[in-house]
Amino acid sequence: MMNFFQYNWQVRDKWLDWCKQLTTEDLLKDRIGGVGSILYTLFHIIDAEYSWLRAIEGKEDVVVRFDDYNTLEKVKTLSDTFRQDIVTFIQTTSDELNDQLVSVPWDEDQYTRSEIVHHIVAHEIHHVGQLSVWARELGLRPVPANFVGRDFKPG
Amino acid sequence: MMNFFQYNWQVRDKWLDWCKQLTTEDLLKDRIGGVGSILYTLFHIIDAEYSWLRAIEGKEDVVVRFDDYNTLEKVKTLSDTFRQDIVTFIQTTSDELNDQLVSVPWDEDQYTRSEIVHHIVAHEIHHVGQLSVWARELGLRPVPANFVGRDFKPG
Repeated sequence: MMNFFQYNWQVRDKWLDWCKQLTTEDLLKDRIGGVGSILYTLFHIIDAEYSWLRAIEGKEDVVVRFDDYNTLEKVKTLSDTFRQDIVTFIQTTSDELNDQLVSVPWDEDQYTRSEIVHHIVAHEIHHVGQLSVWARELGLRPVPANFVGRDFKPG
Repeated sequence: MMNFFQYNWQVRDKWLDWCKQLTTEDLLKDRIGGVGSILYTLFHIIDAEYSWLRAIEGKEDVVVRFDDYNTLEKVKTLSDTFRQDIVTFIQTTSDELNDQLVSVPWDEDQYTRSEIVHHIVAHEIHHVGQLSVWARELGLRPVPANFVGRDFKPG
């Protein structure tokens, strides 16, 4: 599963780089579909990943507000900061806990750790698919999404 | 990894159902981003999944042309037919072969089985993200993409 996280992070970093060519207006413009703007989508991916991971860890949710992270630089910093925690957790957690049920503050249902990890992975890929359409609508080439042909380094 | 295939198949079947409300024109209309139309996207997902899986199996690629499958019913039948083969293969293959290198006729590079399986999973989720934007552009609610809260049955 770590390979999927590394894939998502590599693709996300490319999108954060890709965004540098956009104006603030294009970054923040409310678009049709998904959760709204390009920058808010990236913020939402980062926020969701961390919130679900914190829930698995049994830690309290860290609530972040987009109003406090509404620039590309701040979103990139948020991504990097959370990632450190997530890497450490994933590297030290055991697959034996996969069936353990987890409660989250934003949903009444409980889910297994395994379900949540799958959810985090699929969530980011899904939203990145949306970014790719918006990119073309802006007349720009999206970041490649192929999984094959990447070279992942541990960590 | 089987969970991801089951997730993708469940979501795909919901999209194939969802498409029943569209006119043929809307199904086949060339859209901005992705690989083109809504129906061609679904065809492309099914074709790509099967082609990569056949490559892993060391079997010759089955070339399918969209011109022969350009109705919703034909695409659904194609999906169901290929899926039978894929389920059988996944259930009988061994994780020990994950590092085995695979050649494919449409690419000069070789990839490991594990890379290819990751690629198939991410490929479908990515394209489904694109469908979700096009759905909203049509003023329609997309098929839910959440991984959590599903009940997978074997097979």
